[in-house]
Amino acid sequence: MAAPNWLYENFDTAGSAIGFRVNKKLDEVQSPFQKIEIYGSTDWGNVMLIDGAMMVTTRDNFLYHEMMSHPALFTHADPKTVVIIGGGDCGTLREVLRHPGVEKAVQCDIDEQVTRMAEKYFPELCESNGDPRAEILFDDGIAYMANCEPGSVDIVIVDSTDPVGPAEGLFNKAFFESCHRALKDDGILVQQSESPLVLLDLIKAMRTEMGKAGFTTFQTLPFPQPCYPTGWWSCTLARKGQGFDFRDADARAKPFETLYYTADIHKGAQSLPPFVAKALGEG
Amino acid sequence: MAAPNWLYENFDTAGSAIGFRVNKKLDEVQSPFQKIEIYGSTDWGNVMLIDGAMMVTTRDNFLYHEMMSHPALFTHADPKTVVIIGGGDCGTLREVLRHPGVEKAVQCDIDEQVTRMAEKYFPELCESNGDPRAEILFDDGIAYMANCEPGSVDIVIVDSTDPVGPAEGLFNKAFFESCHRALKDDGILVQQSESPLVLLDLIKAMRTEMGKAGFTTFQTLPFPQPCYPTGWWSCTLARKGQGFDFRDADARAKPFETLYYTADIHKGAQSLPPFVAKALGEG
Repeated sequence: MAAPNWLYENFDTAGSAIGFRVNKKLDEVQSPFQKIEIYGSTDWGNVMLIDGAMMVTTRDNFLYHEMMSHPALFTHADPKTVVIIGGGDCGTLREVLRHPGVEKAVQCDIDEQVTRMAEKYFPELCESNGDPRAEILFDDGIAYMANCEPGSVDIVIVDSTDPVGPAEGLFNKAFFESCHRALKDDGILVQQSESPLVLLDLIKAMRTEMGKAGFTTFQTLPFPQPCYPTGWWSCTLARKGQGFDFRDADARAKPFETLYYTADIHKGAQSLPPFVAKALGEG
Repeated sequence: MAAPNWLYENFDTAGSAIGFRVNKKLDEVQSPFQKIEIYGSTDWGNVMLIDGAMMVTTRDNFLYHEMMSHPALFTHADPKTVVIIGGGDCGTLREVLRHPGVEKAVQCDIDEQVTRMAEKYFPELCESNGDPRAEILFDDGIAYMANCEPGSVDIVIVDSTDPVGPAEGLFNKAFFESCHRALKDDGILVQQSESPLVLLDLIKAMRTEMGKAGFTTFQTLPFPQPCYPTGWWSCTLARKGQGFDFRDADARAKPFETLYYTADIHKGAQSLPPFVAKALGEG
């Protein structure tokens, strides 16, 4: 590729597309699970695609990684043990490890190649991989959660691709039952839950499956994410009974810098737009 | 166009693109000012492009129109006279007229063809055009503001295209001086201010020009907008001294429905992410 070129992801489900101007294809690997491509872009740093879907750019990944971690960690009273299912780019792991109270953070992604690519093309996301509290596994996240010691985990973060292909099994009752069992009574499950504008049906279906698995309270937090379809994304928290008041004072006094997350942003995201609240039965 | 096709806007400034799957080109007109195209899409209703840039889709325009109007109108103590510069699709006008206290709303767009196209392809946006409080002009907004009676307007809303082509003159000191003169002492200027992720320089430059024109306090509110580059957009409010505390109780008791805007969403948008606050010198 000589001159800059436009690289698009056509998101069939929603009939919308996202694209970046790229000037170089840096790598491509077909792992046993998926095709991973890396491009250099003119304005967004490096871009990782998995099976043609934009996963991470250097420039905007902080939005997603901060929102997948800090709201859950500042909602739980004292999170010590965190499990990340997926998250092979290690960006969520890095954010989790910013919390000094975390004693152990396990990252279990099925595809080692995602992490190898991240180490090479997104080294800043991997800067905490050597933290003694981090355990990085390349294994089936569904099996990992099924075999987890009951009541041993404070927070499970499901940082997965879309619910097709390898990630399909991360969106159903059986998987959520494993998460429910692994979590302590005050534990929190948080999962990336796609676009609140065009994928409300998916968020509803996910909550229904979580409910069948025993979770009783839910909270969906929207946030901007330019490299994902519609540029507007969400995570959904689930819990066994407790509400989602967060540790406001601790969030304000957090001992680390963030680019997007703040206590006020967290609080703001808790107020759903009426059309979302209505669709989720909270209106 | 027989089979569905992908229609993209490549946003050169940011090196990112937005696209929709369309199945029909419904119309195209070259006005004296710009080329206006209308497509039917598979998932987003109709789509209007001006000079190749996505302007409005049936599905997501409520985000922009609600945020261009309600935050300013619920910040001003008692807005009676509102001027909209641009806004030819009439969606902002419709939102402004939902406020019972508004006695007069002037919409001044240079291009009559935008409104003619909106009447035909986005009739819901034009449903308040016959309101006796509405005055719809097709004229040069720069001249309109320059000739406005001093101290006669409560709110000026600049609902323009990007600062190139016909809208270029809506982003500089001379135009803002006209707005400043036309506004009463407690008046509010609000302008669409592009993407807070990739166009922070533009927001800074706009605030600087507003400052040269006499405005002293500013507030930038981010919101999601899938059909604009990066899917994350903003409006910027400017004032002559007063702050931006809004009429919280009135916003909660508003006598009309909204899909996105609420008092809590408004309050949430007032908390800028740290990277935006820092770039704007508010960090």
